[in-house]
Amino acid sequence: MIDSVLAHADERLAAAFDRLSELIRIPSVSADAAYDGACAKAASWLAQTLRELNFECSIHETGGKPIVLCRKTAPGNKRSVLFYGHYDVQPAEPLEHWKSDPFALEFGVNARGGRTIVGRGSADDKGQLLTFVEACRAWLTVTGALPVDVTMIFEGAEETGSAFLADFIAGHRSELGADVALICDTNMWDPATPAIVTSLRGLVQAELTVRAAAMDLHSGVYGGGAENAIHVLTRLLAAMKDERNRITIPHFYDGVPEVAASVRDQWSKLGFTARDFLGPVGLTQSAGETGRHLIDQTQFQPTFDVNGIYGGYAGKGTKTIIPAEATAKLSFRLVGKQDPTAILDHLKSFIAERLPSDCSFHLEPQDLTPAATVDPKCSGVDVARRVLVEEWGAEPVMVGSGGSIPVVAMFKDLLGIETVLMGFGLDDDRIHSPNEKYDVASFHKGIRSWARFLGHFGEATQS
Amino acid sequence: MIDSVLAHADERLAAAFDRLSELIRIPSVSADAAYDGACAKAASWLAQTLRELNFECSIHETGGKPIVLCRKTAPGNKRSVLFYGHYDVQPAEPLEHWKSDPFALEFGVNARGGRTIVGRGSADDKGQLLTFVEACRAWLTVTGALPVDVTMIFEGAEETGSAFLADFIAGHRSELGADVALICDTNMWDPATPAIVTSLRGLVQAELTVRAAAMDLHSGVYGGGAENAIHVLTRLLAAMKDERNRITIPHFYDGVPEVAASVRDQWSKLGFTARDFLGPVGLTQSAGETGRHLIDQTQFQPTFDVNGIYGGYAGKGTKTIIPAEATAKLSFRLVGKQDPTAILDHLKSFIAERLPSDCSFHLEPQDLTPAATVDPKCSGVDVARRVLVEEWGAEPVMVGSGGSIPVVAMFKDLLGIETVLMGFGLDDDRIHSPNEKYDVASFHKGIRSWARFLGHFGEATQS
Repeated sequence: MIDSVLAHADERLAAAFDRLSELIRIPSVSADAAYDGACAKAASWLAQTLRELNFECSIHETGGKPIVLCRKTAPGNKRSVLFYGHYDVQPAEPLEHWKSDPFALEFGVNARGGRTIVGRGSADDKGQLLTFVEACRAWLTVTGALPVDVTMIFEGAEETGSAFLADFIAGHRSELGADVALICDTNMWDPATPAIVTSLRGLVQAELTVRAAAMDLHSGVYGGGAENAIHVLTRLLAAMKDERNRITIPHFYDGVPEVAASVRDQWSKLGFTARDFLGPVGLTQSAGETGRHLIDQTQFQPTFDVNGIYGGYAGKGTKTIIPAEATAKLSFRLVGKQDPTAILDHLKSFIAERLPSDCSFHLEPQDLTPAATVDPKCSGVDVARRVLVEEWGAEPVMVGSGGSIPVVAMFKDLLGIETVLMGFGLDDDRIHSPNEKYDVASFHKGIRSWARFLGHFGEATQS
Repeated sequence: MIDSVLAHADERLAAAFDRLSELIRIPSVSADAAYDGACAKAASWLAQTLRELNFECSIHETGGKPIVLCRKTAPGNKRSVLFYGHYDVQPAEPLEHWKSDPFALEFGVNARGGRTIVGRGSADDKGQLLTFVEACRAWLTVTGALPVDVTMIFEGAEETGSAFLADFIAGHRSELGADVALICDTNMWDPATPAIVTSLRGLVQAELTVRAAAMDLHSGVYGGGAENAIHVLTRLLAAMKDERNRITIPHFYDGVPEVAASVRDQWSKLGFTARDFLGPVGLTQSAGETGRHLIDQTQFQPTFDVNGIYGGYAGKGTKTIIPAEATAKLSFRLVGKQDPTAILDHLKSFIAERLPSDCSFHLEPQDLTPAATVDPKCSGVDVARRVLVEEWGAEPVMVGSGGSIPVVAMFKDLLGIETVLMGFGLDDDRIHSPNEKYDVASFHKGIRSWARFLGHFGEATQS
């Protein structure tokens, strides 16, 4: 049976590209309200596509972007899965660095000579989520049925903090119940080696605005006397890391577990260097905490990054002002039991202590997600491991991800289910950057991997 | 004679407002090439206005904005003056903070209840330069002649570094020769007390761009490993001042003279506090070097200010990137014998020493002006002092200005003449900021002051 399903997926791959092309053409950027209409359109497109496969679909308005629920059950199925994906994408800016229209599917070639699909969302997450949808399509077309009950939930605010998702899940527990949750929004270890993610970093995002004088001032008249908001902001940001690149906010590291010595020993045997990881993006050395392994720095340690900064005159030429105001967009990746709300409070105290007494600041929280872990022994992970060996011919690596997927903690806390994070992205996919791509091999073998998963999970005895 | 001239200036003040209104309506912003046409229009307006007063006028193209020369001589005149003004203005941004159209003259009221003229350039320098033009008009209308030979030079790049001015002056020495140069682009001590500026700070402006990775990176995948261009930039900027707010660039203070102890003693008797100076702009304490008097900090010490900063994502919402590039617009005010070119070199070394080895930077110089001083004993300053006492009923204060007027050093070096800096601006004029204004009293009594100056300087014996 599975062989016919896989053969069908192979034969109909071109049609799957066409469907991905349709979805990429919808510029569903969640960070900017100007694209609200496109977000609604992407939600409708998913519902319509799954209705054509005889799923029961509903679109739910939230305080933010619509959430789509699609469900297909059969009386004989013993087991059920809940698949999560997000139809929203990152802004395409800076547009001038794209070699093709960000909102159109173009084929390209990767550094290894393989074919790629280029476009905003080609990997994150439109291409990845469609691997699961296309696997369902193959099963339904060949056999007329799915081997497990399938519920899909698609949200449109993953890139901006999933503000309304937890409330929605809490309010729809009965419809979302399943034996395991599935997500296709993570990376492989390398192009030949699949990976299953068993831990995810959390995320605190906040916008910090510093105000000094009541207006921009002439730097000749006031220079040397009046405080400059950019100076205040840059001093604050520079003070947030010490010379060892350790974050200096008091209590920031509360709840950060130390990785076991045995695991750290394994890393040292991997021969994995900063140059291997950072060379492809033009860097040669790690900017992480001195003395820690790169895997520790990027997967198991919390981080601090400024995602954007602006203040004063940014036009052409010069303007001799002392700026009154400056703003930075801050983000912190969290691990272990770090508490997002507590970190926001510690950050506020850190700023307040260092701010000149005649300046003021505002810290606008934008995202507060705790870190999450998956039980590596749950039956979903077991099936995923088997499936990946069959499809890729290599044992998957169990990894921690540096990224954040807030829904994993929600599924565990609100529905009591573990999540299998089986994704086919690659480190060179340029997600969140211009010229985002997804390998054709990832898309094709991703569909085949999920088709195998549906078959095996349906056969497996209850765990 | 002078009484009739002054009476005429009083009677025809409304017409002078109309002419200032015409000039303010021309948005001659030099920092942005989009306004090149407006700059040319402002140059033409000045030439046309002075041709109507029977000046010989010519407009000279440069590599930048046009320079206007206007000249009126008479055989009987014993002495000559060279008046300098600039028709370019600062950008009006941020537009949302203006209470009226920046490029239209509106009347307002100042904090003391006096009438004001509001608009970009109302003070800096359109309103100020017209005080001199209107004084000439009054003399010509009443007497048919000017008591001294007058050459006027108007440039359009003062706000952006006057790049082509020195070459122009060097190439037009014979046409620019005069006994003294005059500039109306400085402030009074306070609304009741005039001032003559006898020293000006220099200016180094440069745009610093830091590059880290070859592209923006996903902060989940690369966070904790990849260097962030904003972090590199903010660390550099924060390191440029120490805890006492002293600039840390090696050799930066070479050539900075210490103010005489006797002068510093005088300051301490003035009762001039940070709250007096900074209170009106919403600040209460000085951000200058610890242990120095505010007058020292703002007039006699060099400064460092960041005029603008940008990098990464500045749109609405969040974008979890590690930015590849970040830029800051830097400016340094210089004093004494500080060498602008040497300071640029020291700055480059400072940055290069601190930059992570896999990052790069570019420093684009935009302005390199040395500090300048005026001989307080020259005859022009002597006449100015007498004139100001007559018109304002108060002895003018001889002050150092924190601002920079590059042309003063050029006149001294290239033409061998001293410059009288007699201006009628006030500290609350908001030049370079939204809602720039010029007091009606400054404009009116400024015209009268220059009318007196022309008369007295014509009478004076050769110095």
